[in-house]
Amino acid sequence: MTIANLSTSVSTQTTSEKILDAAEGLFAGSGYAATSLADVADVVGIRTPSLYNHFRNKEALYGAVLDRLIDSFSAPLYELGQTEVTLEQVMGQLESVVRQHHANPNLARLLQHAALSGGPHTDELIDRLFRPMFSSPSKLEGGNIPMLGDSGLQPWAVMAFNNLVMSYVTMAPMYSDVLGLDPFSEEALENQLTLVKSLLQAVFEYKGA
Amino acid sequence: MTIANLSTSVSTQTTSEKILDAAEGLFAGSGYAATSLADVADVVGIRTPSLYNHFRNKEALYGAVLDRLIDSFSAPLYELGQTEVTLEQVMGQLESVVRQHHANPNLARLLQHAALSGGPHTDELIDRLFRPMFSSPSKLEGGNIPMLGDSGLQPWAVMAFNNLVMSYVTMAPMYSDVLGLDPFSEEALENQLTLVKSLLQAVFEYKGA
Repeated sequence: MTIANLSTSVSTQTTSEKILDAAEGLFAGSGYAATSLADVADVVGIRTPSLYNHFRNKEALYGAVLDRLIDSFSAPLYELGQTEVTLEQVMGQLESVVRQHHANPNLARLLQHAALSGGPHTDELIDRLFRPMFSSPSKLEGGNIPMLGDSGLQPWAVMAFNNLVMSYVTMAPMYSDVLGLDPFSEEALENQLTLVKSLLQAVFEYKGA
Repeated sequence: MTIANLSTSVSTQTTSEKILDAAEGLFAGSGYAATSLADVADVVGIRTPSLYNHFRNKEALYGAVLDRLIDSFSAPLYELGQTEVTLEQVMGQLESVVRQHHANPNLARLLQHAALSGGPHTDELIDRLFRPMFSSPSKLEGGNIPMLGDSGLQPWAVMAFNNLVMSYVTMAPMYSDVLGLDPFSEEALENQLTLVKSLLQAVFEYKGA
C-alpha cells in the first residue's frame, strides 16, 4: 500500500460528500436563494468551476442535498398511514422523529426556508414528506381519538405535531437563553421528549370536559 | 379646500407607511440578508436614494418594521406573567394570539427568518417577545398543571404552544394542498382554533394515565 492509498483509506469522505455537507449547512442557514455555489466552494476549499465536475448547477446540488436528508430520515411518522396503530406505536414513532430532528436539524431548517421563501423542488418535498402523512390517516386501534371526536380534525392534529417537532429545532436560537439550556443538549432533548409525549398522551386519552 | 388638499385627504398613507408595508412583506418573504433597499424602493415605486429621506439605512428600516409589528400585536400571551390565571383566561389569550398571527403572519415569518439566519435586533426580539413569557411563569389557579406535575416543564409547554401557533402560519404553504384548504381562509382558522383549544384543554385537564 502506497502512502497515497493509505491517505485515501483514512480520509474516506469524497469531494462530492464534502460538497453536500457544505451545501446542506449553507442552504439550512440562509435558504436556497441566498446561497451561491461560490459560497459552497469556499467552505469546501475548492474553486467554483471544480464544483461543476460534481453537480450540474445549484438546483441539482440542492436536490441532491434534499435527497440525502430525506433518505437519512427513516421517516417514522410517514409510515403511519398503513393500518391500525396503537398509542404505543405512535409514541415510539414520535420519539424517533424528535430524536432524528435533534440529531440533524437541517431537514427541518430547509423545509422551513422553502415554506417561507419558496424555491425549487418544493412540490416534491410536499409529495415525499407531507402527503403520506395525510393521504391515508392512520386509524387508532379502537376508533376515533376521543378528544377530536368526529370533528375531522385528525389531519390538523398530525400537522400540529409535525410542526411542533420541527419548530423546536428551527426556533431553537430564540429559546436557548430564556430556557437557560442549549436546545441541542441531551438534557433539553429529554425535556422536549417528555413534553411532546405527554401532549400526545393527553390527546389520545383525554375524554373531553 | 384645494385639489391638492383633497388628494392628500383621500390618499392617507404616507410614503413612510408605504415603505414600511413594502419592507415588511419583503423581509417576511426573504429574510433580512436577502432583502435590499433597492427591492423595497422598487415595490414602493420610488428611487432608492429617496428612501434615505425616511430611513437611515436597512437596519433602521428593519427595526421600524419590527417595532410596528410588535406594537400592533396586543401580545396577549405575554401578559400571562402577572398573576394567577384561570383556564378560561388562558384560552381567551390563546385564541386572540392565533387570530392575530392569522390576520398578519408577517411577525411570525420575520421571527422565523431571524431564528434560522440571524440578523440585527434578534436579542431585542427575544427580550420583547420571548423573555416575558418565561421570566415569571403564570400560576394556574389551583396549583400545577396536573399533566406536567412538578416536572418543571411548564416553560417547555409555553414554548410548544408559542411554536405551534407561529409555525401554523410559517409552514402554511406546505399544508394547503394536503389539507385541501387555504390555511388563511376563515374555515381553516376555525379548524386551527378548535384544535389548539382542544390541545390546551387536554393539557390543563388531563390528569395522567
